[in-house]
Amino acid sequence: MAINLSDAPVVVMGAGAVGSYFGGMMSRAGARVTLIARPGHAQAIRKSGLLLDTVTFKEHVAIDASTEPSAVRGAQFVLFCVKTLDTEIAARAIAPHITPGTIVISVQNGVDNVARIRAASGIDALPAVVYVAAALPEPGHVKHSGRGELIVGEYRSEPPLPPRDNTRPELVSELCAAAGVPCRVSADIEVDQWTKMVMNCAGNAVTAIAQTSFAHAARHLDTREVMRLVINECVAVARSAGVRLPDVDWTEKGLKNAETLGEATSSTAQDIARGKTTEIDSLNGYIVRRGKELEIATPVNLTLFALVKLIEESFARRSRPTESSA
Amino acid sequence: MAINLSDAPVVVMGAGAVGSYFGGMMSRAGARVTLIARPGHAQAIRKSGLLLDTVTFKEHVAIDASTEPSAVRGAQFVLFCVKTLDTEIAARAIAPHITPGTIVISVQNGVDNVARIRAASGIDALPAVVYVAAALPEPGHVKHSGRGELIVGEYRSEPPLPPRDNTRPELVSELCAAAGVPCRVSADIEVDQWTKMVMNCAGNAVTAIAQTSFAHAARHLDTREVMRLVINECVAVARSAGVRLPDVDWTEKGLKNAETLGEATSSTAQDIARGKTTEIDSLNGYIVRRGKELEIATPVNLTLFALVKLIEESFARRSRPTESSA
Repeated sequence: MAINLSDAPVVVMGAGAVGSYFGGMMSRAGARVTLIARPGHAQAIRKSGLLLDTVTFKEHVAIDASTEPSAVRGAQFVLFCVKTLDTEIAARAIAPHITPGTIVISVQNGVDNVARIRAASGIDALPAVVYVAAALPEPGHVKHSGRGELIVGEYRSEPPLPPRDNTRPELVSELCAAAGVPCRVSADIEVDQWTKMVMNCAGNAVTAIAQTSFAHAARHLDTREVMRLVINECVAVARSAGVRLPDVDWTEKGLKNAETLGEATSSTAQDIARGKTTEIDSLNGYIVRRGKELEIATPVNLTLFALVKLIEESFARRSRPTESSA
Repeated sequence: MAINLSDAPVVVMGAGAVGSYFGGMMSRAGARVTLIARPGHAQAIRKSGLLLDTVTFKEHVAIDASTEPSAVRGAQFVLFCVKTLDTEIAARAIAPHITPGTIVISVQNGVDNVARIRAASGIDALPAVVYVAAALPEPGHVKHSGRGELIVGEYRSEPPLPPRDNTRPELVSELCAAAGVPCRVSADIEVDQWTKMVMNCAGNAVTAIAQTSFAHAARHLDTREVMRLVINECVAVARSAGVRLPDVDWTEKGLKNAETLGEATSSTAQDIARGKTTEIDSLNGYIVRRGKELEIATPVNLTLFALVKLIEESFARRSRPTESSA
């Protein structure tokens, strides 16, 4: 069962840096791709194509772009790439325009988007985990600086859903293979989601708050200790929630990961730098909420979460205090 | 025993905003005061006097200024007001120039300066706690925006020191009374030091990290919870260290205090805003070190401490990362 790219329309809902990268790669390989994006980005793409500026090549890719959720109509695959803040609103916006056969893949941070998509819209999406370093330096221009892989799997819901097409993850994998995008099918996607979640919780808030790189944070002795505490809290919450995380040294793994990411910074850091609302509610904020439900103490996740929220609010307030108190 | 201000030379070692305020108030009341300050501030004062810009009056006060630690020579009282980072170096710098009768008062944040002054220089200083909101908007100009009180007491060392003049706190109180500066003698200055320490640890790092006011931090529900956790850790460390903190609701007291401080921000926030090294080592950092010695867990103090240090270092690094990782 090989996918013919030209017969499998792909629509990216929420084409920021990540969605534009994957959509661009698929289009370049011959898929029929539409990007649903913000007006400036969509306009630039319609005018001059998407400038796909990767670590191995740089070229303009012709690709459809729209600002309308109704553009998902006719898609066989929908890459659902909106920020986790917009999960519900975006799910509701596309729901009237897809069919039961449309395969919607949540390519998002966090671990609860598929459940949220279902609750908001009834769409039975597939969870995916994405590893890519990409940015949108200007409308119409994706700057890719590393990796670009997907992991996809089937969502195990409680209570179980009625029987459904269990070949969906394989179809996504075939789509990616045909487009030259590395994609692995996971037998336990929850483990992969939480693996990334742990890394995000350990590094994103810290790099955002200090506006620094993963490697710098991981070199700093006290910050390393903070990252260890965050990771231990996350792993405790995951295990208590029934996630079958393997028995590895998660703190070591998390610190190594941060070192490997080097001079890159987190999406959370970029959001803060631009005065945008972050995805912290789906990262450390989720750990805090889930920890409360499961009666697991998460003081360090709470602190990081609260500080990022306070920073977001401080930007919003504009007026800055000027007095000093000894 | 009333002090004649003109017979009691006062020298302020480390005349930043706080030291200049108190030195200025005493000089205005008739004391012979010398401010030892950074070159720009000292030069401005020598040229035009100190502009004392308070909530109740604004006037130029003639006052001696020097950049040399040797200017403490002949002082009866030394207000030791350097940042806690400079405690040892400043103590050693003045030690050769004072006599056993000189009363050195540590007017600093934190709880360990008197011990550090002693260890570094042999000087037997008096601990004081200061409540004042003041800033130096420009050299030679103190902007006072609230309070201006001292609490002074005797340091109880372990092992006990040889007998000494136990009237020293009273003499400081009389000096202040003669100069119109509110000053209370405390029977247990450690309790007063820790009371301020708890407030500093609860509010300074948070307002520094988010570059916001005490009131904003205290209004934010998640930050309130963080402040509660910080306070509980501090109180546990203090009690374990033998400090006789009264049995009050410290979390409530801390949050009320932050609300009262209103739109003011912390000295730590100001240091961060100016790219200066903060006193965090003497605040949350001290709690972390003392907690380790006493085997009290301090994860939230550690997180705040590590973040402030990481922010300080990030400024120092200059080169900023530019990549984003999803």
